[in-house]
Amino acid sequence: MKRYFRANIDEMHGYTPGEQPKLANLVKLNTNENPFPPSPQVAAALQNIDYQRLRLYSDPLADDLRDTIAEINGVPRDMVIAGNGSDDILTMVFRAFTDETHPVAVLEPTYSLYPVLAQMQNTPPVIKIELELPGFTLPENILEQARGANLLIITRPNAPTGNSFDLRKMEKICQEFDGIVFFDEAYADFADDNCLELAKKFDHVIVSRTSSKSYSLAGLRLGYAIGNAALIDGLFKLKDSYNLDMLTQMLGKAAFADQEYLRATVKTIRRFREELTAEFHRLKFTVIPSQANFLFVSPPDGDGQRYFKLLRDEAVIVRYFAGPVTGKFVRITIGNPEQNARLMQVTRKIFA
Amino acid sequence: MKRYFRANIDEMHGYTPGEQPKLANLVKLNTNENPFPPSPQVAAALQNIDYQRLRLYSDPLADDLRDTIAEINGVPRDMVIAGNGSDDILTMVFRAFTDETHPVAVLEPTYSLYPVLAQMQNTPPVIKIELELPGFTLPENILEQARGANLLIITRPNAPTGNSFDLRKMEKICQEFDGIVFFDEAYADFADDNCLELAKKFDHVIVSRTSSKSYSLAGLRLGYAIGNAALIDGLFKLKDSYNLDMLTQMLGKAAFADQEYLRATVKTIRRFREELTAEFHRLKFTVIPSQANFLFVSPPDGDGQRYFKLLRDEAVIVRYFAGPVTGKFVRITIGNPEQNARLMQVTRKIFA
Repeated sequence: MKRYFRANIDEMHGYTPGEQPKLANLVKLNTNENPFPPSPQVAAALQNIDYQRLRLYSDPLADDLRDTIAEINGVPRDMVIAGNGSDDILTMVFRAFTDETHPVAVLEPTYSLYPVLAQMQNTPPVIKIELELPGFTLPENILEQARGANLLIITRPNAPTGNSFDLRKMEKICQEFDGIVFFDEAYADFADDNCLELAKKFDHVIVSRTSSKSYSLAGLRLGYAIGNAALIDGLFKLKDSYNLDMLTQMLGKAAFADQEYLRATVKTIRRFREELTAEFHRLKFTVIPSQANFLFVSPPDGDGQRYFKLLRDEAVIVRYFAGPVTGKFVRITIGNPEQNARLMQVTRKIFA
Repeated sequence: MKRYFRANIDEMHGYTPGEQPKLANLVKLNTNENPFPPSPQVAAALQNIDYQRLRLYSDPLADDLRDTIAEINGVPRDMVIAGNGSDDILTMVFRAFTDETHPVAVLEPTYSLYPVLAQMQNTPPVIKIELELPGFTLPENILEQARGANLLIITRPNAPTGNSFDLRKMEKICQEFDGIVFFDEAYADFADDNCLELAKKFDHVIVSRTSSKSYSLAGLRLGYAIGNAALIDGLFKLKDSYNLDMLTQMLGKAAFADQEYLRATVKTIRRFREELTAEFHRLKFTVIPSQANFLFVSPPDGDGQRYFKLLRDEAVIVRYFAGPVTGKFVRITIGNPEQNARLMQVTRKIFA
């Protein structure tokens, strides 16, 4: 076939999402889904939906939803844009700030979607800022390394490593970096602190959040970004006109409005996180201190792939990222008590 | 503020969707929504949704939904990609086939989103193929005009004009055009024929459809494209990983599966189309022969804007497109019997 595609698209490989296996009795701890159901308010909102209204277009600006997001974050509505998942936000951001002459800087390792988005924009090689072992911490010279990038993405807490970075250091980066600083805060609700105030303070800083993890709404596709109104206004030009369907707007609003449920479920998951961390330590695992709803752990023999496969043989599905550093680890979502017990039972069988 | 945005983004204006006014008692005929509710099967599917499943990611490949789409179109699943509205399909197509050195050719007038998408890709000036008056027909030299474009979009039936183009001429274009031919068939279910067979026959031809109009699901955001499996595979690399939420996949599948309801509602709307066309003719309007669920009509005085405003004064909202040619017309969605009666009552008051 003739090459109709742009060369950068022809050459790229798409992003590989974590698998969604359809087996029964599976302990699925591979895509950082929340073990709890969404807020009961989501169920109530679903009950109230009149299917006949689906014949009408949804609000292209998602104003009602954005009002709720604005309220829970203490910002005006014009500082908020909502997306079809935070991947949609990332797509807008890459299209806004990167191209053949505007590179992006990201951490390494981090969310593997970023380089895929960069390739779609045909950017110069992605500037990868290697995190320092043993704890996947930020290098001192991050600003030096990121120099020349028009966009710096800091995933905080980071994935797949789960750790966070010092908030004062984040402020210093915002003060000194000469481009957009984008904090991908998909996991921030599980962390001790976040960068929201930096997005309020600096007009070149954006924070993104998602309903997929802390609000138990991975299947709904809803994320948002907060930043200076002029930046948000620019991103609006890049979004699909009706990027959020009517159901997502209604159910998402119901979920965001129920902050009490969020606090309760997050608190429980953080408790599970502590318990699992302690158990892995007892089994001599290396555990990166997690601020997210997952753990990045390395077994005593340092063979992540073997551990991944042994878990899989017992129908416990976690995520393995090949590579000289990441390959020593697996990423394990914090599940419900039964799932966590099963995980540790299998793990003890292998390593105790 | 410093210019963080790429220059082409800074300079562009976003797409302006038709308004979604929140007034009561409005006769809303401005965005080509279907006057009928979605299939009762959609209501049933909505009843059956377990909100707890929303904690899980949706199928990134939307296989169940694509199986249904494949079946109703008589193609294998790997010839189908689904999008978050057909705008999402268009975004993928523009990112796949256009950039600084790969221009796009479109009709003029046509769907005003295309030039916006081209500007996001920073393409050379869009090649606009002017349709010929009085009927907005294709010029004989379309291939000559489109030469050099890597992507030729033919909106069929066209919007906002509503007319279609000879199917044999479409085949000839596919035979001779040296780039991707994209048939935007958002309104094809209301037409006498469509280009599906051309997408099956030629490996550089894509047809897109939407559930927004004929399936009464504008609020759900669901479109799809059909083309050669290699083309579809390339588009998959460009889509957001989980571009379709779980509810959209389930409700969309239910709607597509109910072809009987589609046929019945389309048949009724086509009957309304004939009746309204005849009434406008009686009032000495120019009516472009419509193959869609709307009419493009010009009042006897040729002043589209005045007619638009007079209708608006009576709470009948239609769509007006400024311009030396389009400004003579308004675009009117075919509504339910009450809406259509009110439209004609107001129109007669002005022009009879």
